[in-house]
Amino acid sequence: MAKADSEQRMSKKAYEARVADVRAALVHMQVQLKNAPFPVLMVVAGVDASGKGDVVNVLNAWLDPRGVETFAFHEPTDEERERPPMWRFWRCLPPHGRLGIYAGGWHTEALREDPRSPRDFAEFDTALRRIARFEDQLTADGVLIVKVWLHLSKDGQRARLHELEDDERTAWRVTADDWKSHRDYDRLAKLADTMRRATQRPGAPWLVIDASDPRARNLAVAERLLARFNAHYRTHQTLAARAKPRRTAPLRAAGLRRLLALPLDQSLAQGDYEEKRDKWLGKLNRIVRAAAVARRSIVWVFEGWDAAGKGGAIRRLTDAIDARDSRVIPVAKPTDEEKAHHYLWRFWRHVPRAGMTTIYDRSWYGRVLVERLEGFARDQEWRRAFSEINEFERELVEHGVIVIKYWLHISKEEQLRRFRNREETEYKQHKINAEDWRNRRKWSAYETAVGDMLALTQTRFAPWHLIPANNKRFARLEIIKSSYKQIEAALAK
Amino acid sequence: MAKADSEQRMSKKAYEARVADVRAALVHMQVQLKNAPFPVLMVVAGVDASGKGDVVNVLNAWLDPRGVETFAFHEPTDEERERPPMWRFWRCLPPHGRLGIYAGGWHTEALREDPRSPRDFAEFDTALRRIARFEDQLTADGVLIVKVWLHLSKDGQRARLHELEDDERTAWRVTADDWKSHRDYDRLAKLADTMRRATQRPGAPWLVIDASDPRARNLAVAERLLARFNAHYRTHQTLAARAKPRRTAPLRAAGLRRLLALPLDQSLAQGDYEEKRDKWLGKLNRIVRAAAVARRSIVWVFEGWDAAGKGGAIRRLTDAIDARDSRVIPVAKPTDEEKAHHYLWRFWRHVPRAGMTTIYDRSWYGRVLVERLEGFARDQEWRRAFSEINEFERELVEHGVIVIKYWLHISKEEQLRRFRNREETEYKQHKINAEDWRNRRKWSAYETAVGDMLALTQTRFAPWHLIPANNKRFARLEIIKSSYKQIEAALAK
Repeated sequence: MAKADSEQRMSKKAYEARVADVRAALVHMQVQLKNAPFPVLMVVAGVDASGKGDVVNVLNAWLDPRGVETFAFHEPTDEERERPPMWRFWRCLPPHGRLGIYAGGWHTEALREDPRSPRDFAEFDTALRRIARFEDQLTADGVLIVKVWLHLSKDGQRARLHELEDDERTAWRVTADDWKSHRDYDRLAKLADTMRRATQRPGAPWLVIDASDPRARNLAVAERLLARFNAHYRTHQTLAARAKPRRTAPLRAAGLRRLLALPLDQSLAQGDYEEKRDKWLGKLNRIVRAAAVARRSIVWVFEGWDAAGKGGAIRRLTDAIDARDSRVIPVAKPTDEEKAHHYLWRFWRHVPRAGMTTIYDRSWYGRVLVERLEGFARDQEWRRAFSEINEFERELVEHGVIVIKYWLHISKEEQLRRFRNREETEYKQHKINAEDWRNRRKWSAYETAVGDMLALTQTRFAPWHLIPANNKRFARLEIIKSSYKQIEAALAK
Repeated sequence: MAKADSEQRMSKKAYEARVADVRAALVHMQVQLKNAPFPVLMVVAGVDASGKGDVVNVLNAWLDPRGVETFAFHEPTDEERERPPMWRFWRCLPPHGRLGIYAGGWHTEALREDPRSPRDFAEFDTALRRIARFEDQLTADGVLIVKVWLHLSKDGQRARLHELEDDERTAWRVTADDWKSHRDYDRLAKLADTMRRATQRPGAPWLVIDASDPRARNLAVAERLLARFNAHYRTHQTLAARAKPRRTAPLRAAGLRRLLALPLDQSLAQGDYEEKRDKWLGKLNRIVRAAAVARRSIVWVFEGWDAAGKGGAIRRLTDAIDARDSRVIPVAKPTDEEKAHHYLWRFWRHVPRAGMTTIYDRSWYGRVLVERLEGFARDQEWRRAFSEINEFERELVEHGVIVIKYWLHISKEEQLRRFRNREETEYKQHKINAEDWRNRRKWSAYETAVGDMLALTQTRFAPWHLIPANNKRFARLEIIKSSYKQIEAALAK
């Protein structure tokens, strides 16, 4: 069998002649990539014994290893298992200008589950949809994803396994599992087919490559990478200029109406507040501990106007939580490592382990608020962010994370009062600067953006809670109470 | 007992009066810290039931949670266990301007081992020395480390355990282990004493605080933090200006002599090279796989003159290694996250997991080469780096990591030839720039620095290998051969 095959194989001479050109082209690609505003993800997947590892090693040998990172996903570590499934892939994304090679990709992980029952198949479908959305998000952001599937017929696979076994240098690579998977060839091929169809995305199409001749296979993979890179590079050569800020009309007026209808005049007397606060803080403390025991994580999102009292509300909340199990992430300007990744990467980084909590003081919603209004994100970027954010939160919730989102709302007059108070109080002066005043002048534009955010990211699994915050005591108590209730409801499920 | 104690306790009123001032002072501290060129590490350790967790939570309640991260070290995760012991602490270091609170610190981890046999005690000593050096490195870099030990007498501990048990809200916190540790009080106290003496460093002294009165205890901890911060802040207010580059004489002339004595005229014919290379690559491939099976990691360090052929040598090396198990780290300008940490932090980040390999293309030795000569590091900074680097490598080797270090040496004339060749060859032009020419003009200063590096970081556990590299083939073969031999020797131990 192997003999018959090899007669049609590419000769060593013909191969080497082409390799020289391919190598030069790959290195040229890396020089161009170095300053390009996107990374390249090269996925090498395929049937067993098709030579995925060989291809990965050949690519590494041809490329300058200094611009490449190679990833293989074995069993998840405990740090990975305790977070949503895609976390381990987000943490392996290279920054702009670099190339990541993925042996098996995230796809092999899904196939490894080997679904058999209808329930398994439902989970398999979910996993595939998650992968498709992951790739959509990345390609929409300009990431180049190149995916190849190395194919062998059942006969070809058998021949290749025998060939490996017959050579003493490679015999150790063939295990009982390989022969088991060979006997199951037809069923596995069908699964792989389903996987490829479900993850066949416009921006990240599969190319099936015949792997029966290793030399032809290696060249085909490298040439695919080069062709896709060259096409992509032409259209993404430079970082898109900052967009011109646009004062757009609301996308969905219902959100703005909801915001404007919020009554802001609630109040709460000091004595009344303290008594209720202590009672509810006690309850919150117990339920957060119960969540930790149940290995459920909690993610709080705090958004709101400047000076709406986010910091103070977070302090009251953390009073009820063991500091050793929680983390407050103040979201300010991204670092340069963060800027060289997808905008959600910096939030994925901080997703808590099982039983831990993360409080985001401002969050991914900056994409549809300040980035929309200041032109840091282009029109199509902030528009698609609504669904990207919903997807991100869905993945958290599907994994069992409890997501609690607050918008702290104050009136424009109340903000003015607080700004003046900050300027006049020595120990508060560090909390106010020219940018706060600039943002204030865009109040109505922000109102529109907040309204759209409320309407378009209001989901069943991660709903918004609007907090009237003109009265700080009222706001803080509301947050403590409603946090308790949401955690209680989530644990009861 | 508890009753008798409580009569001498601070009244609630007296406490609250002082808490107000302490809180204001803490927040003021955080405002100053925000722009300070150092982080603060606050370690809260102490005997069981002394209230470490309570203190950590009180500090968190008093501080603005947005500038604080709290860490408790439970059982190491598998990602942590597979790396040298201090890795898990390096990854939890806050950047400049932020405060980390450590419940138990790295010290509790050492005590947890509970040494009993002489062999245990030897390991305990090693762990304590490691901790002392860790703190020395950080404080030398300007980090403020504040360490408190919460003390209870044996009677006080019993009283406190009863008190916790008697209150239904806290009864769950007392376990059988706590009573066991109570019965063992004297022995554990002696161990803790040993630990404190061994880690009593000038820059990071312990303060033992009487924890019998929780209110007084809380205030004492906060006041210690404030006092240490204020003293530290006065002397470290601003980032030290860049030092004036100095052409110093060699610190240890033996290194320079060793460098200059290296014969550079070896050569190797193409045919001879290819045959030997393939033979040794095969051997190297097998031994690297054997190391992986034995769960031993390998760290390669490549240093050398510009154009000495580091990139090419690394490519040949990676030909022998499965790309899925290895990572090449090109060391260029640090990112802003890296700049906000100790200079070794960016290298600790990439220390490989068990059985994996990391190749550093340039490395931590930049501290005593380019940083010394360009004035990026001040005199005392690069001078102490020699021992810091030795310590870092010692920790790797003690954990079983195989460390292989190369200096690729070429003559000044050979460098000129290669620079010109790069300028004249279109596809090599990206490899040469004005900085290379600038560095070249400082050849003799670099020679001095390299000589000192060779002399002062030449250790039994991580020796330097000088590679004559005027002939690229000779250099590459030498590297492949000597890598094989070093791994073989390390595995034989």
